Amino acid sequence: MKLYDTRTAPNPRRVRVFLAEKGIEIPNVQQIDIGKLEQKAEEYRRINPLRRTPALELDDGTILTESVAICRYFEEIQPSPPLMGTDAKSKALVEMWQRRIELHLLLPVALAFRHTHPAMAEMEKPQFPEFGEANKPRVLEFLQHLDNQLGKHRYIAGDTFSIADITALVACDFMRPARIPRSQDLKNITRWYGEVSTRPSAKA
Amino acid sequence: MKLYDTRTAPNPRRVRVFLAEKGIEIPNVQQIDIGKLEQKAEEYRRINPLRRTPALELDDGTILTESVAICRYFEEIQPSPPLMGTDAKSKALVEMWQRRIELHLLLPVALAFRHTHPAMAEMEKPQFPEFGEANKPRVLEFLQHLDNQLGKHRYIAGDTFSIADITALVACDFMRPARIPRSQDLKNITRWYGEVSTRPSAKA
Repeated sequence: MKLYDTRTAPNPRRVRVFLAEKGIEIPNVQQIDIGKLEQKAEEYRRINPLRRTPALELDDGTILTESVAICRYFEEIQPSPPLMGTDAKSKALVEMWQRRIELHLLLPVALAFRHTHPAMAEMEKPQFPEFGEANKPRVLEFLQHLDNQLGKHRYIAGDTFSIADITALVACDFMRPARIPRSQDLKNITRWYGEVSTRPSAKA
Repeated sequence: MKLYDTRTAPNPRRVRVFLAEKGIEIPNVQQIDIGKLEQKAEEYRRINPLRRTPALELDDGTILTESVAICRYFEEIQPSPPLMGTDAKSKALVEMWQRRIELHLLLPVALAFRHTHPAMAEMEKPQFPEFGEANKPRVLEFLQHLDNQLGKHRYIAGDTFSIADITALVACDFMRPARIPRSQDLKNITRWYGEVSTRPSAKA
Protein backbone atom coordinates (compact mmCIF):
# COMPACT_ATOMS: atom_id res chain seq x y z
CA MET A 1 0.00 0.00 0.00
CA LYS A 2 1.34 3.41 -0.96
CA LEU A 3 0.01 6.87 -0.19
CA TYR A 4 0.64 9.88 -2.43
CA ASP A 5 0.46 12.88 -0.14
CA THR A 6 0.99 16.65 -0.24
CA ARG A 7 2.01 18.16 3.11
CA THR A 8 0.89 21.66 2.16
CA ALA A 9 -2.61 21.00 0.76
CA PRO A 10 -5.90 20.77 2.69
CA ASN A 11 -7.42 17.63 1.14
CA PRO A 12 -4.48 15.30 1.78
CA ARG A 13 -4.50 16.55 5.37
CA ARG A 14 -8.05 15.24 5.76
CA VAL A 15 -6.72 11.75 5.07
CA ARG A 16 -3.69 12.15 7.37
CA VAL A 17 -5.87 13.29 10.30
CA PHE A 18 -8.35 10.46 9.60
CA LEU A 19 -5.54 7.89 9.65
CA ALA A 20 -4.10 9.38 12.84
CA GLU A 21 -7.51 9.07 14.54
CA LYS A 22 -7.64 5.42 13.46
CA GLY A 23 -4.08 4.82 14.61
CA ILE A 24 -3.09 3.61 11.14
CA GLU A 25 0.44 4.23 9.90
CA ILE A 26 1.32 3.86 6.23
CA PRO A 27 5.08 3.36 5.89
CA ASN A 28 5.21 3.97 2.14
CA VAL A 29 4.37 7.63 1.51
CA GLN A 30 5.49 9.70 -1.45
CA GLN A 31 5.25 13.47 -1.31
CA ILE A 32 3.90 15.19 -4.43
CA ASP A 33 4.98 18.83 -4.37
CA ILE A 34 2.18 20.95 -5.80
CA GLY A 35 4.39 24.06 -5.68
CA LYS A 36 6.65 22.31 -8.20
CA LEU A 37 3.59 21.10 -10.19
CA GLU A 38 4.67 17.48 -9.59
CA GLN A 39 0.99 16.45 -9.76
CA LYS A 40 1.09 17.32 -13.46
CA ALA A 41 4.18 15.22 -14.22
CA GLU A 42 3.70 12.26 -16.52
CA GLU A 43 4.73 9.86 -13.74
CA TYR A 44 1.88 11.02 -11.49
CA ARG A 45 -0.71 11.14 -14.27
CA ARG A 46 -0.44 7.36 -14.33
CA ILE A 47 -1.62 7.43 -10.70
CA ASN A 48 -4.33 10.06 -11.10
CA PRO A 49 -5.09 11.42 -14.57
CA LEU A 50 -7.08 14.18 -12.83
CA ARG A 51 -3.75 15.40 -11.38
CA ARG A 52 -4.74 15.77 -7.75
CA THR A 53 -3.56 14.43 -4.43
CA PRO A 54 -4.07 12.41 -2.30
CA ALA A 55 -4.09 8.96 -3.93
CA LEU A 56 -3.79 5.51 -2.40
CA GLU A 57 -2.33 2.59 -4.32
CA LEU A 58 -3.50 -0.78 -2.98
CA ASP A 59 -1.35 -3.89 -3.09
CA ASP A 60 -3.40 -5.27 -6.00
CA GLY A 61 -2.62 -2.12 -8.03
CA THR A 62 -6.04 -0.50 -7.57
CA ILE A 63 -5.73 3.26 -7.24
CA LEU A 64 -8.12 5.19 -5.04
CA THR A 65 -8.35 8.96 -5.28
CA GLU A 66 -10.61 11.51 -3.56
CA SER A 67 -9.94 12.05 0.14
CA VAL A 68 -13.28 10.75 1.38
CA ALA A 69 -13.09 7.63 -0.80
CA ILE A 70 -9.71 6.84 0.74
CA CYS A 71 -11.14 7.47 4.23
CA ARG A 72 -14.11 5.21 3.46
CA TYR A 73 -11.73 2.40 2.47
CA PHE A 74 -9.99 2.60 5.85
CA GLU A 75 -13.32 2.93 7.71
CA GLU A 76 -14.40 -0.35 6.12
CA ILE A 77 -11.20 -2.30 6.75
CA GLN A 78 -10.79 -0.91 10.27
CA PRO A 79 -14.14 0.25 11.66
CA SER A 80 -12.76 1.23 15.09
CA PRO A 81 -12.93 3.98 16.18
CA PRO A 82 -15.91 4.76 13.93
CA LEU A 83 -15.56 8.12 12.17
CA MET A 84 -18.45 7.81 9.69
CA GLY A 85 -21.33 6.70 11.91
CA THR A 86 -22.43 3.27 13.14
CA ASP A 87 -26.07 2.80 12.08
CA ALA A 88 -28.34 4.09 9.31
CA LYS A 89 -29.26 7.32 11.05
CA SER A 90 -25.83 8.24 12.38
CA LYS A 91 -24.16 7.36 9.06
CA ALA A 92 -26.65 9.63 7.27
CA LEU A 93 -26.15 12.46 9.77
CA VAL A 94 -22.35 12.27 9.45
CA GLU A 95 -22.70 12.27 5.64
CA MET A 96 -25.08 15.24 5.84
CA TRP A 97 -22.74 17.35 7.98
CA GLN A 98 -19.68 16.26 6.04
CA ARG A 99 -21.34 17.47 2.85
CA ARG A 100 -22.65 20.68 4.39
CA ILE A 101 -19.11 21.46 5.54
CA GLU A 102 -17.70 20.62 2.11
CA LEU A 103 -20.28 22.57 0.12
CA HIS A 104 -20.76 25.61 2.34
CA LEU A 105 -17.37 25.93 4.05
CA LEU A 106 -14.49 24.10 2.38
CA LEU A 107 -15.62 24.83 -1.20
CA PRO A 108 -16.21 28.59 -0.82
CA VAL A 109 -12.97 28.92 1.19
CA ALA A 110 -11.13 27.09 -1.60
CA LEU A 111 -12.77 29.21 -4.31
CA ALA A 112 -11.86 32.40 -2.43
CA PHE A 113 -8.27 31.17 -2.11
CA ARG A 114 -7.91 30.05 -5.71
CA HIS A 115 -9.40 33.19 -7.22
CA THR A 116 -7.82 35.82 -4.97
CA HIS A 117 -4.43 34.53 -3.80
CA PRO A 118 -1.37 35.56 -5.87
CA ALA A 119 0.22 32.14 -5.27
CA MET A 120 -2.61 30.54 -7.26
CA ALA A 121 -2.22 32.74 -10.36
CA GLU A 122 -0.41 29.96 -12.21
CA MET A 123 -2.65 27.06 -11.17
CA GLU A 124 -6.02 28.82 -11.48
CA LYS A 125 -5.95 30.47 -14.86
CA PRO A 126 -7.81 32.76 -15.27
CA GLN A 127 -8.49 33.96 -11.74
CA PHE A 128 -11.76 35.86 -11.15
CA PRO A 129 -10.94 37.96 -8.07
CA GLU A 130 -14.45 39.45 -7.72
CA PHE A 131 -15.97 35.98 -7.81
CA GLY A 132 -13.41 34.87 -5.22
CA GLU A 133 -14.36 37.75 -2.92
CA ALA A 134 -18.08 36.93 -3.31
CA ASN A 135 -17.43 33.56 -1.65
CA LYS A 136 -16.25 35.15 1.60
CA PRO A 137 -19.66 36.32 2.91
CA ARG A 138 -21.03 32.84 2.13
CA VAL A 139 -18.41 31.35 4.43
CA LEU A 140 -19.36 33.74 7.22
CA GLU A 141 -23.08 33.03 6.76
CA PHE A 142 -22.51 29.28 7.04
CA LEU A 143 -20.29 29.68 10.12
CA GLN A 144 -23.32 31.15 11.89
CA HIS A 145 -25.30 27.96 11.15
CA LEU A 146 -22.36 25.88 12.30
CA ASP A 147 -22.09 27.88 15.51
CA ASN A 148 -25.78 27.15 16.22
CA GLN A 149 -25.19 23.44 15.70
CA LEU A 150 -22.13 23.48 17.98
CA GLY A 151 -24.24 25.22 20.63
CA LYS A 152 -26.37 22.06 20.74
CA HIS A 153 -23.73 19.35 20.32
CA ARG A 154 -20.14 18.76 21.38
CA TYR A 155 -19.11 17.78 17.83
CA ILE A 156 -20.46 18.70 14.43
CA ALA A 157 -22.53 15.63 13.63
CA GLY A 158 -23.62 15.07 17.23
CA ASP A 159 -21.92 13.97 20.41
CA THR A 160 -19.25 11.83 18.74
CA PHE A 161 -16.15 13.02 16.89
CA SER A 162 -16.45 12.22 13.16
CA ILE A 163 -14.99 12.86 9.74
CA ALA A 164 -17.19 16.00 9.60
CA ASP A 165 -15.04 17.48 12.39
CA ILE A 166 -11.90 16.64 10.44
CA THR A 167 -13.18 18.35 7.30
CA ALA A 168 -14.31 21.38 9.28
CA LEU A 169 -10.96 21.65 11.12
CA VAL A 170 -9.11 21.57 7.80
CA ALA A 171 -11.52 24.12 6.30
CA CYS A 172 -11.14 26.48 9.29
CA ASP A 173 -7.35 26.31 9.04
CA PHE A 174 -7.63 26.91 5.27
CA MET A 175 -9.46 30.19 6.01
CA ARG A 176 -6.13 31.74 7.03
CA PRO A 177 -4.35 31.57 3.62
CA ALA A 178 -7.71 32.41 2.01
CA ARG A 179 -7.65 35.56 4.18
CA ILE A 180 -11.07 35.09 5.73
CA PRO A 181 -10.93 36.01 9.43
CA ARG A 182 -12.97 33.84 11.81
CA SER A 183 -14.84 35.93 14.36
CA GLN A 184 -14.19 35.05 18.01
CA ASP A 185 -17.85 35.99 18.63
CA LEU A 186 -18.75 32.56 17.31
CA LYS A 187 -18.23 31.16 20.78
CA ASN A 188 -19.36 27.61 20.09
CA ILE A 189 -17.02 27.30 17.11
CA THR A 190 -14.20 28.77 19.21
CA ARG A 191 -14.88 26.16 21.95
CA TRP A 192 -15.05 23.33 19.38
CA TYR A 193 -11.95 24.55 17.49
CA GLY A 194 -9.96 24.69 20.71
CA GLU A 195 -10.90 21.09 21.36
CA VAL A 196 -10.38 19.49 17.92
CA SER A 197 -7.26 21.48 17.00
CA THR A 198 -5.46 20.19 20.09
CA ARG A 199 -6.20 16.51 19.49
CA PRO A 200 -2.93 14.76 18.61
CA SER A 201 -4.36 13.91 15.14
CA ALA A 202 -4.52 17.62 14.20
CA LYS A 203 -0.74 17.66 13.81
CA ALA A 204 -0.86 14.92 11.15
CA MET B 1 -41.45 9.64 6.81
CA LYS B 2 -41.84 12.68 4.59
CA LEU B 3 -39.81 13.78 1.57
CA TYR B 4 -39.42 17.41 0.57
CA ASP B 5 -38.81 17.35 -3.17
CA THR B 6 -38.40 19.75 -6.09
CA ARG B 7 -39.41 18.25 -9.45
CA THR B 8 -37.38 20.76 -11.47
CA ALA B 9 -34.00 20.63 -9.69
CA PRO B 10 -31.11 18.22 -10.30
CA ASN B 11 -30.21 17.23 -6.72
CA PRO B 12 -33.69 16.09 -5.65
CA ARG B 13 -33.80 14.01 -8.85
CA ARG B 14 -30.73 12.09 -7.65
CA VAL B 15 -32.78 10.92 -4.65
CA ARG B 16 -35.86 10.08 -6.75
CA VAL B 17 -33.83 7.96 -9.19
CA PHE B 18 -32.04 6.24 -6.28
CA LEU B 19 -35.38 5.39 -4.63
CA ALA B 20 -36.79 4.12 -7.95
CA GLU B 21 -33.77 1.81 -8.35
CA LYS B 22 -34.40 0.51 -4.82
CA GLY B 23 -38.11 0.11 -5.50
CA ILE B 24 -38.93 2.34 -2.52
CA GLU B 25 -42.04 4.52 -2.66
CA ILE B 26 -42.55 7.36 -0.20
CA PRO B 27 -46.24 8.23 -0.04
CA ASN B 28 -45.78 11.53 1.80
CA VAL B 29 -44.02 13.96 -0.57
CA GLN B 30 -44.26 17.72 -0.48
CA GLN B 31 -43.14 19.76 -3.47
CA ILE B 32 -41.06 22.86 -2.71
CA ASP B 33 -41.27 25.19 -5.72
CA ILE B 34 -37.88 26.86 -6.17
CA GLY B 35 -39.29 29.10 -8.90
CA LYS B 36 -41.59 30.59 -6.25
CA LEU B 37 -38.68 30.69 -3.71
CA GLU B 38 -40.66 28.39 -1.40
CA GLN B 39 -37.33 27.04 -0.08
CA LYS B 40 -36.80 30.45 1.54
CA ALA B 41 -40.19 30.55 3.26
CA GLU B 42 -40.17 30.49 7.07
CA GLU B 43 -42.07 27.18 7.07
CA TYR B 44 -39.31 25.42 5.12
CA ARG B 45 -36.48 27.04 7.07
CA ARG B 46 -37.62 24.96 10.01
CA ILE B 47 -36.88 21.88 7.85
CA ASN B 48 -33.59 23.08 6.37
CA PRO B 49 -32.11 26.38 7.55
CA LEU B 50 -29.74 26.17 4.57
CA ARG B 51 -32.83 26.53 2.32
CA ARG B 52 -32.19 23.68 -0.09
CA THR B 53 -34.06 20.62 -1.25
CA PRO B 54 -34.30 17.67 -0.92
CA ALA B 55 -34.91 16.92 2.75
CA LEU B 56 -36.19 13.80 4.47
CA GLU B 57 -38.09 13.94 7.75
CA LEU B 58 -37.92 10.66 9.68
CA ASP B 59 -40.74 9.45 11.90
CA ASP B 60 -38.75 10.42 15.03
CA GLY B 61 -38.51 14.02 13.74
CA THR B 62 -34.86 13.78 12.60
CA ILE B 63 -34.31 15.78 9.44
CA LEU B 64 -31.80 14.62 6.84
CA THR B 65 -30.65 16.96 4.10
CA GLU B 66 -28.05 16.56 1.32
CA SER B 67 -29.01 14.15 -1.47
CA VAL B 68 -26.25 11.64 -0.83
CA ALA B 69 -26.93 11.56 2.93
CA ILE B 70 -30.56 10.71 2.18
CA CYS B 71 -29.43 8.03 -0.29
CA ARG B 72 -27.04 6.59 2.29
CA TYR B 73 -29.87 6.29 4.81
CA PHE B 74 -31.89 4.20 2.36
CA GLU B 75 -28.82 2.15 1.34
CA GLU B 76 -28.40 1.23 5.00
CA ILE B 77 -32.03 0.36 5.75
CA GLN B 78 -32.52 -1.48 2.45
CA PRO B 79 -29.16 -2.69 1.08
CA SER B 80 -30.64 -4.46 -1.97
CA PRO B 81 -29.95 -3.73 -4.76
CA PRO B 82 -26.63 -2.25 -3.63
CA LEU B 83 -25.95 1.16 -5.20
CA MET B 84 -22.94 2.21 -3.07
CA GLY B 85 -20.71 -0.86 -3.26
CA THR B 86 -20.62 -4.05 -1.22
CA ASP B 87 -17.09 -4.37 0.24
CA ALA B 88 -14.28 -2.01 1.23
CA LYS B 89 -12.80 -1.72 -2.26
CA SER B 90 -16.06 -1.39 -4.19
CA LYS B 91 -17.48 1.08 -1.65
CA ALA B 92 -14.33 3.20 -2.01
CA LEU B 93 -14.43 3.02 -5.83
CA VAL B 94 -18.08 4.08 -5.93
CA GLU B 95 -17.29 6.94 -3.54
CA MET B 96 -14.32 7.95 -5.70
CA TRP B 97 -16.31 8.08 -8.93
CA GLN B 98 -19.29 9.68 -7.24
CA ARG B 99 -17.02 12.47 -6.02
CA ARG B 100 -15.18 12.82 -9.31
CA ILE B 101 -18.55 13.23 -11.05
CA GLU B 102 -19.70 15.73 -8.44
CA LEU B 103 -16.51 17.80 -8.42
CA HIS B 104 -15.57 17.74 -12.09
CA LEU B 105 -18.96 17.42 -13.80
CA LEU B 106 -22.00 18.32 -11.67
CA LEU B 107 -20.31 21.26 -9.90
CA PRO B 108 -18.89 23.02 -12.99
CA VAL B 109 -22.16 22.42 -14.88
CA ALA B 110 -24.06 23.96 -11.94
CA LEU B 111 -21.64 26.90 -11.72
CA ALA B 112 -21.97 27.53 -15.48
CA PHE B 113 -25.76 27.41 -15.14
CA ARG B 114 -25.95 29.65 -12.08
CA HIS B 115 -23.59 32.30 -13.42
CA THR B 116 -24.75 32.47 -17.06
CA HIS B 117 -28.47 31.61 -17.16
CA PRO B 118 -30.91 34.55 -17.03
CA ALA B 119 -33.34 32.48 -14.94
CA MET B 120 -30.75 32.43 -12.14
CA ALA B 121 -30.26 36.21 -11.98
CA GLU B 122 -32.46 36.46 -8.89
CA MET B 123 -31.10 33.42 -7.01
CA GLU B 124 -27.40 33.89 -7.79
CA LYS B 125 -26.66 37.48 -6.96
CA PRO B 126 -24.30 38.69 -8.30
CA GLN B 127 -23.75 36.48 -11.33
CA PHE B 128 -20.21 36.32 -12.79
CA PRO B 129 -20.87 35.37 -16.43
CA GLU B 130 -17.18 35.11 -17.39
CA PHE B 131 -16.52 32.79 -14.45
CA GLY B 132 -19.56 30.75 -15.50
CA GLU B 133 -18.21 30.41 -19.04
CA ALA B 134 -14.78 29.35 -17.72
CA ASN B 135 -16.41 26.25 -16.21
CA LYS B 136 -17.56 24.92 -19.58
CA PRO B 137 -14.15 23.78 -20.92
CA ARG B 138 -13.56 22.03 -17.55
CA VAL B 139 -16.71 20.00 -18.12
CA LEU B 140 -15.55 18.99 -21.59
CA GLU B 141 -12.10 18.05 -20.32
CA PHE B 142 -13.57 15.79 -17.64
CA LEU B 143 -15.97 14.15 -20.11
CA GLN B 144 -12.92 12.91 -21.99
CA HIS B 145 -11.68 11.16 -18.82
CA LEU B 146 -15.16 9.74 -18.27
CA ASP B 147 -15.31 8.48 -21.84
CA ASN B 148 -12.01 6.63 -21.28
CA GLN B 149 -13.42 5.00 -18.14
CA LEU B 150 -16.62 3.98 -19.94
CA GLY B 151 -14.50 2.43 -22.68
CA LYS B 152 -13.20 0.01 -20.05
CA HIS B 153 -16.35 -0.61 -17.98
CA ARG B 154 -20.07 -0.91 -18.60
CA TYR B 155 -20.87 1.52 -15.78
CA ILE B 156 -18.96 4.38 -14.23
CA ALA B 157 -17.61 2.72 -11.09
CA GLY B 158 -17.12 -0.68 -12.75
CA ASP B 159 -19.41 -3.37 -14.09
CA THR B 160 -22.29 -2.69 -11.69
CA PHE B 161 -24.77 0.20 -11.84
CA SER B 162 -24.22 2.56 -8.89
CA ILE B 163 -25.07 5.94 -7.43
CA ALA B 164 -22.19 7.36 -9.52
CA ASP B 165 -24.23 6.56 -12.66
CA ILE B 166 -27.24 8.34 -11.18
CA THR B 167 -25.22 11.47 -10.40
CA ALA B 168 -23.64 11.42 -13.87
CA LEU B 169 -27.02 10.95 -15.59
CA VAL B 170 -28.43 13.93 -13.69
CA ALA B 171 -25.31 16.00 -14.46
CA CYS B 172 -25.47 15.14 -18.18
CA ASP B 173 -29.13 16.16 -18.35
CA PHE B 174 -28.28 19.36 -16.47
CA MET B 175 -25.81 20.25 -19.26
CA ARG B 176 -28.77 21.15 -21.49
CA PRO B 177 -30.13 24.12 -19.47
CA ALA B 178 -26.50 25.07 -18.72
CA ARG B 179 -26.05 25.23 -22.52
CA ILE B 180 -23.05 22.94 -22.70
CA PRO B 181 -23.39 20.64 -25.73
CA ARG B 182 -22.24 17.03 -25.27
CA SER B 183 -20.23 15.81 -28.25
CA GLN B 184 -21.50 12.61 -29.88
CA ASP B 185 -17.83 11.80 -30.56
CA LEU B 186 -17.62 10.61 -26.97
CA LYS B 187 -18.87 7.21 -28.11
CA ASN B 188 -18.55 5.43 -24.78
CA ILE B 189 -20.52 8.12 -22.96
CA THR B 190 -23.14 8.02 -25.74
CA ARG B 191 -23.45 4.23 -25.33
CA TRP B 192 -23.65 4.53 -21.53
CA TYR B 193 -26.11 7.46 -21.65
CA GLY B 194 -28.39 5.50 -24.01
CA GLU B 195 -28.41 2.68 -21.49
CA VAL B 196 -28.90 4.55 -18.19
CA SER B 197 -31.31 7.19 -19.53
CA THR B 198 -33.73 4.46 -20.67
CA ARG B 199 -33.82 2.62 -17.34
CA PRO B 200 -37.29 3.07 -15.81
CA SER B 201 -35.71 4.91 -12.86
CA ALA B 202 -34.55 7.75 -15.14
CA LYS B 203 -38.15 9.01 -15.37
CA ALA B 204 -38.38 9.44 -11.60
